[in-house]
Order: sequence, then C-alpha cells, then structure tokens
Amino acid sequence: MVIVMAADANTQQVTAVVDLVTSTGGRAFVSRGLNRTIIGLVGDVDLFDSLSLASLPGVAEVMRISAPYKLVSREHHPERSTVRVGGVSIGPDSVTLIAGPCAVETPTQTLEAALMAQQAGATLLRGGAYKPRTSPYAFQGLGVEGLRILADVREKTGLPIVTEVVEAADVPTVASYADMLQIGTRNVQNFPLLQAVGDAGLPVMLKRGMSSTIEEWLMAAEYIAQRGNLEIVLCERGIRTFETATRNTLDVSAVPVVQRLSHLPVIVDPSHSGGRRDLVVPLTRAAVAAGADGVIVDVHPHPETALCDGPQALIGEDLSRLAEAVTVMASATGRPVNGAPALIG
Amino acid sequence: MVIVMAADANTQQVTAVVDLVTSTGGRAFVSRGLNRTIIGLVGDVDLFDSLSLASLPGVAEVMRISAPYKLVSREHHPERSTVRVGGVSIGPDSVTLIAGPCAVETPTQTLEAALMAQQAGATLLRGGAYKPRTSPYAFQGLGVEGLRILADVREKTGLPIVTEVVEAADVPTVASYADMLQIGTRNVQNFPLLQAVGDAGLPVMLKRGMSSTIEEWLMAAEYIAQRGNLEIVLCERGIRTFETATRNTLDVSAVPVVQRLSHLPVIVDPSHSGGRRDLVVPLTRAAVAAGADGVIVDVHPHPETALCDGPQALIGEDLSRLAEAVTVMASATGRPVNGAPALIG
Amino acid sequence: MVIVMAADANTQQVTAVVDLVTSTGGRAFVSRGLNRTIIGLVGDVDLFDSLSLASLPGVAEVMRISAPYKLVSREHHPERSTVRVGGVSIGPDSVTLIAGPCAVETPTQTLEAALMAQQAGATLLRGGAYKPRTSPYAFQGLGVEGLRILADVREKTGLPIVTEVVEAADVPTVASYADMLQIGTRNVQNFPLLQAVGDAGLPVMLKRGMSSTIEEWLMAAEYIAQRGNLEIVLCERGIRTFETATRNTLDVSAVPVVQRLSHLPVIVDPSHSGGRRDLVVPLTRAAVAAGADGVIVDVHPHPETALCDGPQALIGEDLSRLAEAVTVMASATGRPVNGAPALIG
Amino acid sequence: MVIVMAADANTQQVTAVVDLVTSTGGRAFVSRGLNRTIIGLVGDVDLFDSLSLASLPGVAEVMRISAPYKLVSREHHPERSTVRVGGVSIGPDSVTLIAGPCAVETPTQTLEAALMAQQAGATLLRGGAYKPRTSPYAFQGLGVEGLRILADVREKTGLPIVTEVVEAADVPTVASYADMLQIGTRNVQNFPLLQAVGDAGLPVMLKRGMSSTIEEWLMAAEYIAQRGNLEIVLCERGIRTFETATRNTLDVSAVPVVQRLSHLPVIVDPSHSGGRRDLVVPLTRAAVAAGADGVIVDVHPHPETALCDGPQALIGEDLSRLAEAVTVMASATGRPVNGAPALIG
Repeated sequence: MVIVMAADANTQQVTAVVDLVTSTGGRAFVSRGLNRTIIGLVGDVDLFDSLSLASLPGVAEVMRISAPYKLVSREHHPERSTVRVGGVSIGPDSVTLIAGPCAVETPTQTLEAALMAQQAGATLLRGGAYKPRTSPYAFQGLGVEGLRILADVREKTGLPIVTEVVEAADVPTVASYADMLQIGTRNVQNFPLLQAVGDAGLPVMLKRGMSSTIEEWLMAAEYIAQRGNLEIVLCERGIRTFETATRNTLDVSAVPVVQRLSHLPVIVDPSHSGGRRDLVVPLTRAAVAAGADGVIVDVHPHPETALCDGPQALIGEDLSRLAEAVTVMASATGRPVNGAPALIG
Repeated sequence: MVIVMAADANTQQVTAVVDLVTSTGGRAFVSRGLNRTIIGLVGDVDLFDSLSLASLPGVAEVMRISAPYKLVSREHHPERSTVRVGGVSIGPDSVTLIAGPCAVETPTQTLEAALMAQQAGATLLRGGAYKPRTSPYAFQGLGVEGLRILADVREKTGLPIVTEVVEAADVPTVASYADMLQIGTRNVQNFPLLQAVGDAGLPVMLKRGMSSTIEEWLMAAEYIAQRGNLEIVLCERGIRTFETATRNTLDVSAVPVVQRLSHLPVIVDPSHSGGRRDLVVPLTRAAVAAGADGVIVDVHPHPETALCDGPQALIGEDLSRLAEAVTVMASATGRPVNGAPALIG
Repeated sequence: MVIVMAADANTQQVTAVVDLVTSTGGRAFVSRGLNRTIIGLVGDVDLFDSLSLASLPGVAEVMRISAPYKLVSREHHPERSTVRVGGVSIGPDSVTLIAGPCAVETPTQTLEAALMAQQAGATLLRGGAYKPRTSPYAFQGLGVEGLRILADVREKTGLPIVTEVVEAADVPTVASYADMLQIGTRNVQNFPLLQAVGDAGLPVMLKRGMSSTIEEWLMAAEYIAQRGNLEIVLCERGIRTFETATRNTLDVSAVPVVQRLSHLPVIVDPSHSGGRRDLVVPLTRAAVAAGADGVIVDVHPHPETALCDGPQALIGEDLSRLAEAVTVMASATGRPVNGAPALIG
Repeated sequence: MVIVMAADANTQQVTAVVDLVTSTGGRAFVSRGLNRTIIGLVGDVDLFDSLSLASLPGVAEVMRISAPYKLVSREHHPERSTVRVGGVSIGPDSVTLIAGPCAVETPTQTLEAALMAQQAGATLLRGGAYKPRTSPYAFQGLGVEGLRILADVREKTGLPIVTEVVEAADVPTVASYADMLQIGTRNVQNFPLLQAVGDAGLPVMLKRGMSSTIEEWLMAAEYIAQRGNLEIVLCERGIRTFETATRNTLDVSAVPVVQRLSHLPVIVDPSHSGGRRDLVVPLTRAAVAAGADGVIVDVHPHPETALCDGPQALIGEDLSRLAEAVTVMASATGRPVNGAPALIG
C-alpha cells in the first residue's frame, strides 16, 4: 500500500500517518519529494484498510498494491487449476462445450435440447429451473419440477447438469439434483448466496456481473473460496457498455487477463454476450482462440416458442457449425475438445 | 408492440406473424411500405413476449411500446405517492433528510451519529447492520446485534430506522426491528429478496443498481409492488461509467425522469454517488434542486476510524453546511424540509 | 511518480530502474517491503514519461502523482478565474445564461430566437453556423452566411456571439465574426483545432468530450492554454453511458470536481445533456445549485421545424420557467444573474 | 420510420402528423390500437428527419428503421469489398498483417522496426509522423521529417506505408508520401478531415472512436464514401468501458456485426485495444478467429525507450509468436495470410 500525501501536507500530518500505521504493527517508509511525500506501507493490508487512511488530514490518495484476493490468485498458486464436474474436467488441458436450453420448459423440450447438445459435442448439460428475469411478468422457471426433468434427462443422456441457483435457501435443494451450481450475472455480489454455494461442496460456475470489473469478479470468487470451495469456473458473459448492436459487449480480453491473475478455469458464454444467434459461432471461435477453457451456449429445439432468450438459441443447422468451430479452434490452440471420441480412442 | 419485417421478408412470412399473433387472441395491423412492412400488435404484451417473435423468419426487429411495468407506472396512477415511515412522510410535499452511519459499529458511535444527524435536521436514521462488501475480508456488519443497537438509538432519539437487508431469509428478523427496509445497489435484481420485502408489509427503500437502466430499476420496484407493497421509495446513488474522478456518476437526470414515469417518491444518496466528503454538499444541492424528495447521507462521529466508507462520511463542521443546503434548496423549490420546526409551528 | 516493482523483481531490476532515473537527472527513493519494492521518483515527470518505465523488466506498475496539466490547474493559480466575452463576465461572481438556436437557419429565425433568449435573461447569444453532424445527409450549417446573420443579430440585440468552429483552417474567419469560439464535444481531442483557437486571441468555450474523463478534458484545455490563451470556459454537456432514457448523462459532479482542480469557469449545457425539452429546467436548477458559473440552452421560435435538435429546444412558455429557475437558483447559491437589471440598478 | 403516438394523443394530433408527412410527399399508415396509435412512414427518411416529428404534440417516440448510411451499407452492395494498398489487398480473401512503430522517431528505429515487421509477415508498414497526444507535453511526432523517413524505409523494404493524418490541411502533404491514410480514434467525427481524405484519392483506414457506436462509425465512413472514395478499411481498436484492467475493451463482436452491416473490410488493432504487450498475441488470435480481415500491431526495436506507447509494443521474441498466431488462425478460418510465401509459390 502506498500513501500519497497532499502537496501541502505538513510534517505533523506525515508523522500522524506513520504513527497510526506503526501503532497497528505495520511499517511505514517515507519518501520525501520536491512537491510530495510518499509513504510505503508494509504489513497487513486488510488492517490498513480498516484504518480509513484516506480520511486522515494531509492524505491525498491511498493506493493498494497487492491483489485484494488471495485464494483464487495465481500469485501463490502458479499452476492453473482443473475443475471436475461429474466425470468431466474443465481446465487448461482441453476445451469443454456446455450446451442446453436457457430454461427447462418440458421433459420433451429438455431431452431434445440435450440430445442436440450432445450431438454437437457437449459433455455437460446446462438448463435453468430457477430463472432470474428482469420482468416479474416473465416466465420464472419450473423450480423443483425443472430440476427433476434435468435429473431425468441426465439419466437418459449421461450428461452431468449445470443449473442456476438464485437464493441461498434453495442451495440444498438445487445441490441435491445438480452436478454444478451456476451463479448468474445478477447475483455476482449476492454475498449470502456466494457463501452458501461455497458451503455446498459442489463445483460452481460464477458468471461475471454485467458491470463487474475483473477484480470485483475475482473478489466474488474469493467469497466462495473462503468457504473452502475452490472448485470454481469463471464465465465471461459480456459487459454493459454504450454499444447497442449487441445485447452485451463480450470482453474477450478478460480470458487472458483472468488467466494471468487467477488459477481458476475461465469459459465464455457467446449466447448471452451477443444476444444474437448469428454471433454465437464467430464469438465461440474468438473465445476459444483467446484461450478460453470452454464455452457455454443456448440450444433449443424450437427457439420460436422458447419461453426465454429464443433469439439467441442455436438450432439444428447452426449446431454443426458450432461443433466444427469448437473442434477447429481447439486444435488451432493445441488442445483437444473434452470428451471428443477421437481422443478417447 | 411493433414488428419491423426485414427488407426481403416475403408475404408468407408476414402472414405467419399475423397468424401467430391472432391465434393467441391478439390483433395485428399490417402497414406495407416501399421497402419494409411494419406490423402493429394490440393485445397482451406479456403473451406476445412469450412468442419469441424476434425469432420468426423475416422479422428484423420487435419494438415494445408500452412500459413493461404497470403498478409503479404513473400511467394509471397520475398523482405522485407519499410513503410513510414511522411518523415521517416521504413524498412530493416536503424534502426529507435521512442520515446516519454507513455501518453500525458500537452503541456509542451509533448514538453519536444519530444525534449529529438529528441536529442537522434528519428525521430518519440510516445505519447498516448487514453490510454487503466487495471483499470477503472487509467488515461485514454486526448483524442482529447491530439491529438491537439501532432499536435502542431509536428509543433514545425518536428517529425511525432505515436499514439494509441482504438475504430473503433475514427479512423477518430485520423487519422486526426496522421501520423501513433498504435494498442495496448490488441486490436490485435479487428477485427472491425483492419478493420477500414485498411480502414484509414495511416500507422499502430501493437503491438503483450501479448499472441499472431506469427501466430495469422500475421493473425491480414492480417485483416489490406485485406482492402488494406499494410503499416504495426509489434512491438514485450513482451509476458506473468510465469516469474515475468520482466513485460513481450521480445521474441527477434520473430524478425528473423517474418522476415522470413513476408515481413513487425518489431520493438521492450523494455520499455513495461521489464517494468523497467534499462533494456531498454540492450534490445535495443539485439533487434537491432537481426535485428529489429527499437525500440520504453518511455521517460518522470519527470518519478516520470508520469501518466502512469513512472517506465520504460527513463530520461536525460539514453537517451544518449540509443542513443549510437542504433548507435553502427546499425553500428554493417551494417545499418545506420534513419535520423542520419552523414548519410545525 | 511511484514505481511498484513486481513481487518477483530482483535487486538488479530495482537497480536498473534507479540507474535509469538518476542518469536523466531525477532522484529515486527505494522502499523495500516484505513482498514488494516501491520506488518514489522526484524530478521532471514528462521526462520520466518518456522513459517507458513500465516496460522495464521487473516493473509492475507506474503511478503518476502530480496532475498532468499545469496552466489550467488550480494548484499554482488558487483563485478562480473570470473570462470576459464582449462586455460579459463568466466566472464565480455571477451566473450567466447563454441561449440561442442550435443552428442558424434564417435571419428571421435567428433574430426571433435571440429576442426570446434576451427576454429570458440571456446575456450571450449562441448559434451554430458550422454544425458537426453524425450523418453526412443532415443539415451542416450555413457557414459564412450564418456568421453574417449572427453578426447582424448582434447589432440588433447587443448580445455578444458564441459560435462553434470545427476546423483549424476556419478559425480566422469565424474569429472575425465571433466574440467567443466554441469547441464542440466531437473536437475535444482535435489538437490542431485546439492550438488554432489557442492562437486566435478570443475566449473559448470548450465542451467536454462525450467520453472524456475530467482529466482528459483539462488536458484539452491545457492545449489551448499552452498557446497563451487562458480565456477558457469549460462546458459540461453530458457523458455517454449505458442509460438510454436521456441522450447523454449529465455529470453534475463534474462541476464541483472541476472547480476544485482548475481555476477556469465551468458552465453546463442542460439541452444537449438530456436531449429532452422537459428536462432542461430541472437540469438547469441542478447545475446552478451545484455551483455552475452559467448554463447554455437551445431556444427556437418553431422547434417543430428546426433543422437541428428541435426536440430539446425551449419555446415560449418554457422560457419564463427557465428564467425563473436561473434567478431562484442563483439567489439560493448567493450569486446574481449576470446582467440582471435588479443588480445593475 | 415508425411514429408512436402518446397514450393520450387525440385524433387531431394523429391527423396533424399524417398531414405534415403527406405534405412533404411521404405516405403515412395509421394503426390504431387499444391504447396507442402507431403511424408507419414511407418515403424520404432524411426529409422526415428534418421535420422534427418528435416535437409534434402527441408524439411519444420516433423510431428509424432503415440504416442511416447507404454507400457503405451491405444492403445494396451484398458482396464484401477488397481494398488495394500499394500492391497489397485487404479483404475477405486473406488475412493481412500490418505492423510498425507507433511513432517514427529516427531512421534507424523505423528501419529496424520495419524489418522486424516484415520478418513477422507484415505486408504493410504502419508508423506515425503526426501523433495526436492527450498531453500537450508529450512527443507530437516528427511531421514531414517523419514522412520522409517512412518513404525511405518503404524504398528499402518494399513495404507500402500506412500513416495517420490529423488535420484537413495536412492531407495533401501526407498523401504525397503515404499509400494509405489513417484516421485515428480521436478524429472519427472530425468531419472536415473525413471529407478531406475522401477527396484525396488514397485508401483510408478509419479507426473506431473510443466511444463510437458501430452505427456512428459507419456514418463516419459514409462521410468519406460520399466524396467518392470507397477504398475504406475499418479498424476496431477497443472501446471505452468501466473496466480498467485493459486500456480499452476490445469489442471483438464488432467484427462479425460490421461484416453483416457493411461491405467494407474490417481489421483489429490488438495493441491499442489492450494496451499491454502480453495481450497482443491472444487478442490477435481472437480477432482473426472472429473473421477479421487483418490486424495492425505496434512493434519497436527498443520499447523501453519508445517515445509513444512502449508498454504495448512487441519485441523480438514476441514477434515470432505473433507470426505463428496469424498463420494458424488464418488457416483455421480457411484463409491465406496475405503475401505469405507459401501462397505465392
């Protein structure tokens, strides 16, 4: 931590900062310049944070140097992690395709979507039983009935299930059906929920908040990790910007940036990033090319009747293009597609 | 709702849209232009939403015309509402000052802050017992112990309490102490929490999400209203932009825009908007001048030791300037300050 | 300037930084922490900038401490400036109203708008003869013919003229007619134009770029000041954000922030900020209440036929409300309205 | 164009809109709904724009349907274009690498950088002689002397030159040396400059403004095209968002979105997007994978002494990784690298 004193700070004010820091067990190094004095702090950063140093007279700025997250940081955990979901590994050694319907609507629709996903090479099934919707008048998901449908489809297809949970109280129920718990973009700073999935003992997919900085996103992951659960996969899903041609702006740079800062796997959701069916394949290519450890896409047997996000769901003809995009880009970046037959044999 | 067909849409595609709409009981009016065909829909918009019309072949765009919120809209409730909290009214007929510490830390600190607030003209006490913090290593609030301190201070000062709740499961507990429940910026789309405070039968202060559009914010209010609770006060607290000179960018235009769209009272939080003590008074002036029904500010007897947001908390000398700013601007906009002695007599 | 070394930087790397800095005449103070080493630099910041210190091995971050602008900074010019335009003063001792049509269209329209402006208390006339328009198919202004109309209206009304210039080559021509040169939002980083108006010897109104940080905006002013012209008035006109309810988001906080950083006067354009006629009066109130030294608004005798920005232009009935808003808010903030009769007498 | 009337609009107001539209030669189709009336307009959109329809009594909203750009639109020019620069083609049939120093500093530095670029597979040389810099105290480029250096290096290496022009008056001079004129991000709405390069008869590279929507960017291209110059290459270079981990946020979705809307080639600048050397290769991979027709990168023989943007310039070891990334991704998307020896033979 570095404290920059105001240009007109006097000696007593500098001394007051040094005294406060040393009184808590920290050390303070003073560098006097022609116009400014800078104080470098060494010690417990969280303790320093609690001192409200920026409020002291004569202090112009307080700059944090170390990352405020620890468990998810790559600093003390240099090798990148692999997270196992059911029998499927998500991590640096392969590219994983996760697919399924945005919302579980009926047993038939879910099974059809799962078979479509599987045929395209997906090794994990996504599907929402609890849907956070901007409008209270929109379809909110089938709840437990949806979870049962997912479990049934898992039995039929063998695909482990990724599904969203939106409330801490629901975590035990959802965890009793799911293979991986998803935290959606609107809940990235729902701290009780993060702690509850941290306690649940299941892998977690943590979507980036639509206006989260990368640092805030990693801090949200730290909330889960702090409860002893490091089985976390980060999912970039587009951020909110001024551009309206796409639903969100895919921040593809987040993939290499996160991989440099954190050991956790990071995947991309091209469906929600663009919000347009015609962008799913090019954005999938970009994501895998940038090094993403996987992608998660919406598929639906009949998008025109979908109760949620139909305009971005892939249908039959697109899926083979998606499958090809994933295969080609995985190969071009020197990784196999997870579960691809050629690699098993 | 208006459907714009693609330039190359054919007659069958137009007919398909019309047929789908009419099959659900809606009516469709077709306007054929030189290059484009436009279809105007009349009927149940939520039903139309569920049809995924944007996915139909030949459809270029689907545009919604009516506001997607109803209960909080001014369309069918033209007069502006007043919300009563304890004996205090928040609404168009006065300017209300809410003040208190960001976080409840000790009985003494809370009482001191409350007395400071009261002396500055505050008629409601704010104070957080449950604090959503970006870092899991930051102070998270005292919980129930904090609520007890608040209740005690209410008894000593007579100030009704506004306090945040961050989890649906905590609503009954918090509601048993509080006079008004606050939903923070990170929970504006925590739909189970919105529904829980909708059920709680207490007035609610709903902060705008840091990246919520005004429409999304009003939709969040609609979630509360749908549960039969229309005692909602909206609170603008700054939005996330590229500017870094302030913690957030106060969207002062939101005050008149919301007042035109919704009948609910709207107040402003100048402390969290700017994140700087020196901006609280000018932003308070701007907010009241723009027509805000009140302001909510952080005060702390000793900001330099505050466990939360010390840099923005007002202290002794600032508070009299704040009190004067509120009084002068309320008068300049033709409203009394809520609870001001001169107006009682 | 502060250099933060990477956690794994070695002694040679620290020494290399120190040597490079000292070889250019600067001084370097090394603070070794448990995990990190920090180097504080003292000397010529621009020279340090040219060293590309961030590229040196072992350097994690380079942080600038002093403001990168000098002439427009309040650091060495603590009293706030007043800029004189024709006989009118814009500065901290009064509130100035500037009004007129977005674009000069005809002699009649311009004169009518000027008389409307004058009646509302405006002491300066705005009007565009050169219009930067997003579409090449939109009306681009009358050019020199428009300048002649403005000069004619000045003669008839006595109002000095503020008008935009969009190209360095046009500066002499525009300067031969205008009393104040306006730089529009799209040209805030058109550096040759900034230098040309710096050379022109006339006061300049510098609008904020729609995506300029406050620092970048002050740097743009520094370009003008560097040419010996400190007669600069800054104009906040809304920034680009995700919110679509308003054309731009008025950053009202910019008023007190700029006044703290720079000695230059700062005014607000509520017409272009909101882009809606119904917001002009409340945003004017907010701007003056926040301390703005003036406001600039669009007026038009017949907005429904305006060739530019009709939807935001004030008409007859609104103007008296605007005049009242300016008067009341100037009084509430302890300043007279510039040129108001009551203050002359 | 569609006009949505307010809920309380009366018949006279609807008639007034229809009459105004028809009086200008347009046609108006009225759709009356239960709550709202919608009017569809057919005719000359630019004329409609000039009517200020949004200002008419009873009008709630005016929605444009057709794209406001024409010459650069793909609507009437469905096949994608190829632009020729010197002997080099930029377009859909290949992937072009453009590289060189951010700023021309000395003949040696420029030649070294050009040879590095050429060795990595670049077929065009970039280099700035006129540099728009945020600070007036930063290096502003060598001007004509820099152009002479570039011409000299072109003679030695055979690489055609892409270089920036920042002022309309400089266009003839720059055009007399350059093979392609570059318009930088800060000048995307410098309309006199756009018109001047439109007149210059040379190919133009038009960078996206850091806060331009895709539509505004295409409108800027339309300004150039309107002067009879359709030899335009668009360059995505990152947009301004709230994220601070990268200098800008690369909007990789812009590549497929632009290719759908416009026939012009689109390339990506991964150096300025990320502003970090370590992101250049992954962002190059993402860009080419998404379908970009080329990339433009900064290289410098000695980034630690670069006068401009040293932290993002590639050096020796990185360049072979860049060359490999371009080759692999071009191949994975079925295109040759422009000028690659294997394709000549």
